[in-house]
Amino acid sequence: MSAMETLLAHQRTTSALAQVMGRLGWDQETMMPPGAAEQRGEEMEALETVLHARRTDPRMGEWLETAEPSNEVEAAHLREIRRGYDRAVKVPAKLAAELARVTSVSQGIWAKARANEDVAAFLPTLKRVVELRREEAAAIAAGGDAYDALLQDYEPGSSAAEIAELFGRMRPRLVDLRDRLAGVEMPAPLAGRFPKDAQLALSAEVAATFGYDFDIGRIDLAVHPFSSGSGADVRITTRVDEGEPLGCLYSTVHEVGHATYEQNIAEALRLSVLGQGVSMGVHESQSRIYENQLARSAPFARYLHGRMEAHFGALSAGKDDFARVINRVETGYIRTEADEVHYNLHVMLRFDLERQLFGGALEVDDLEEAWNARFASDFGMAVDKPSHGVLQDVHWSVGLFGYFPTYALGNVYAGCLHEALRRDVPDLDARLEAGDPSPALDWLRENLQRHGGLRTPRETISHATGGEISEAPLLDYLDAKYGALFGV
Amino acid sequence: MSAMETLLAHQRTTSALAQVMGRLGWDQETMMPPGAAEQRGEEMEALETVLHARRTDPRMGEWLETAEPSNEVEAAHLREIRRGYDRAVKVPAKLAAELARVTSVSQGIWAKARANEDVAAFLPTLKRVVELRREEAAAIAAGGDAYDALLQDYEPGSSAAEIAELFGRMRPRLVDLRDRLAGVEMPAPLAGRFPKDAQLALSAEVAATFGYDFDIGRIDLAVHPFSSGSGADVRITTRVDEGEPLGCLYSTVHEVGHATYEQNIAEALRLSVLGQGVSMGVHESQSRIYENQLARSAPFARYLHGRMEAHFGALSAGKDDFARVINRVETGYIRTEADEVHYNLHVMLRFDLERQLFGGALEVDDLEEAWNARFASDFGMAVDKPSHGVLQDVHWSVGLFGYFPTYALGNVYAGCLHEALRRDVPDLDARLEAGDPSPALDWLRENLQRHGGLRTPRETISHATGGEISEAPLLDYLDAKYGALFGV
Repeated sequence: MSAMETLLAHQRTTSALAQVMGRLGWDQETMMPPGAAEQRGEEMEALETVLHARRTDPRMGEWLETAEPSNEVEAAHLREIRRGYDRAVKVPAKLAAELARVTSVSQGIWAKARANEDVAAFLPTLKRVVELRREEAAAIAAGGDAYDALLQDYEPGSSAAEIAELFGRMRPRLVDLRDRLAGVEMPAPLAGRFPKDAQLALSAEVAATFGYDFDIGRIDLAVHPFSSGSGADVRITTRVDEGEPLGCLYSTVHEVGHATYEQNIAEALRLSVLGQGVSMGVHESQSRIYENQLARSAPFARYLHGRMEAHFGALSAGKDDFARVINRVETGYIRTEADEVHYNLHVMLRFDLERQLFGGALEVDDLEEAWNARFASDFGMAVDKPSHGVLQDVHWSVGLFGYFPTYALGNVYAGCLHEALRRDVPDLDARLEAGDPSPALDWLRENLQRHGGLRTPRETISHATGGEISEAPLLDYLDAKYGALFGV
Repeated sequence: MSAMETLLAHQRTTSALAQVMGRLGWDQETMMPPGAAEQRGEEMEALETVLHARRTDPRMGEWLETAEPSNEVEAAHLREIRRGYDRAVKVPAKLAAELARVTSVSQGIWAKARANEDVAAFLPTLKRVVELRREEAAAIAAGGDAYDALLQDYEPGSSAAEIAELFGRMRPRLVDLRDRLAGVEMPAPLAGRFPKDAQLALSAEVAATFGYDFDIGRIDLAVHPFSSGSGADVRITTRVDEGEPLGCLYSTVHEVGHATYEQNIAEALRLSVLGQGVSMGVHESQSRIYENQLARSAPFARYLHGRMEAHFGALSAGKDDFARVINRVETGYIRTEADEVHYNLHVMLRFDLERQLFGGALEVDDLEEAWNARFASDFGMAVDKPSHGVLQDVHWSVGLFGYFPTYALGNVYAGCLHEALRRDVPDLDARLEAGDPSPALDWLRENLQRHGGLRTPRETISHATGGEISEAPLLDYLDAKYGALFGV
């Protein structure tokens, strides 16, 4: 075998084992008995040890030096394998294993602390996680910016400075739109009781409408909705609140965006470094365009109204008012429940706190205070309890620092993709009103999803849109959408 | 670190990875989307490659040569690690990986063939599995008996010749008892419809009664009931037929016997070679004593009758007749549904066919015919369809040849344990009638379960009973039980 073939075969086994690790994560959130947490931590540590050994195998350095790609796809494999190797060899095996073990257990501690509104119970664990991630970031950065180093795990090619500039350009227009909407009287939320089984049935139906393939996927309940796995086994989770049916529904559509991206990657790329979404930002662009530009559009709202009445009986809002109900704008504590206007402001708060944490300007002990002060300043509300503030997201408990900004990048990418998609599919509104998003799904699959990691994140978006990345389409779309809905 | 410490640390990681492999197997049977089967095969092959590399790591040979156990427990670790190593190094890595891949996919093919009553659809796969296992058996046996080599995977220290002798001694008394019972008119089976949810609720309740710890376990549905995992994460499955509630209930109690054995092993032994049931035969002794000697006893039947009426409403059988209903003797096709009198005869059939398959006297193409001929001769009935015959069990599809005889060994062990248990717990019947099997469970935990793999299988049983292993207690128990119930 040539060095190239050897490298690809080695990577294929590593990718298969990484899928196994992903499955353990899914199991932990959905099926694992509570008392198994500690043993599971040790199991994941063992698998992480194996993965790290494979990713830093000294032979990989040799193969990478001599491998010669014979086409564009092999060159892309080589680029991504090299990126992974260069990162992995910088992290000591012991640190990688310790991180896997600690973050496996820490999630349970976070969940309990959140349930008990007890920040103090979570702090020692969070300190340890931050300490380990700082150590890791320093190792990867090799003298460069620690937070930039972490960003590469989620959005290769991005930098904190550039993101800060982008957010700086977005903020004034978002704040302006929010302030204009502040004077508008919003319609009441849906009233009534929405049985769990009916919510799950509706979610499964809409998931299928949005192309989720149940032959290679399944939906379960979890505290935090997520999508897990690549290729032929991509599972999503959702959550149900019987007093409020839109959270379950739109969480599901969001995760279906992530999951169909994975399901639609070309079969030839499965179980390789290119066989998964290319970055978290591009991933989020899929989930957000499914959730917002498509499923929260006025025409789809008219279709959805009928389907909801089929599952729940008569709704407290009429068909013509439904788009306004599902796009209510309201300042709230929770990022995942935020409307499209507020959402990016939630991300910016986290991004700035993370930069401070990893730049040395903020310590974990002061995090809650910093969060609450910043939230009051950005949102004009005092955080009333930790589960509405610093404890609300799972991310930090599992060491995901540098992940949050990709949510806003995803929105920006979704804006660009939506602009191009509308150009190419002129009758989309009519199809959405008929409950058929397939022309949009086909466009996304053909132009973006099937290519997996063939191109870098930015190239992936530019290839699909044929243009440069800019925040303008997103902000123009928000102005137009909320202007039409609420007359501002 | 000393060689002993190094060896134990290495083994601990291997054991943790083996638990991960077990979890993949559980997932495949309970949760995995159908279209994921092929990818899962590759994931399991990757993990098997890793496990095989660890189990055959050349350093293990060195550590094993120089390791010096400092106590009885370390000596037991060493004994079991050496046994595993000696076996593993005899099997080429490629063969081990191929077996993992093939048997992962073959199970799905078997399930489909069984559903379609289509033996031909399964034959090519079964041939490949047998071929690979023959190759493996030849490698392990190193000139010795191939089938004996396979037996060591399930019942270390056993031999086919010895088992054949044991079965030879058992058969006449079993046949005699069966023939005496043939003239007895059996009570009617329970009539009615038993809703799935109520069956699952009753099963969960009785599982808890028999000590199953849901904090480190869970119950799901699967085609074939099984127990999976060791230590702090031991899951079981069951199945439901709404026309017949006893199958679900007793499958569950059976698996609870397996699962509590794993759950009750001393915490200090977790994630080691001693941290799991010592053999399949000893495992089966636990599941069978829970299921038969305890849960199918006349006093427990009186308690159970009340619990079933609480879940299902009035039953078609009265309290005083219930022990006869749950111990009905009837010739049937299905091993897992067989009464205690017929059960071992089903095992003997499979044992003899397996010996022929691996001794070269039988080929896969002739297996169905051989099965049907033997069944007619042993049971006096013609097999009416493959799912009642050669396709009924999952075992062969996943390469489990040499496993079946351990079911009968388990019954023999259970007989010995039950005799000793009755001696030590004289008031057990009164406790069982009150719905409290805990004195028996405590006895089993203390005398057997908590020790895991500390002793060899036979030593494990002899340590618990204080005597030699013999088929006599089982056969005496059967004579006494069925004599009392049916007056034979």
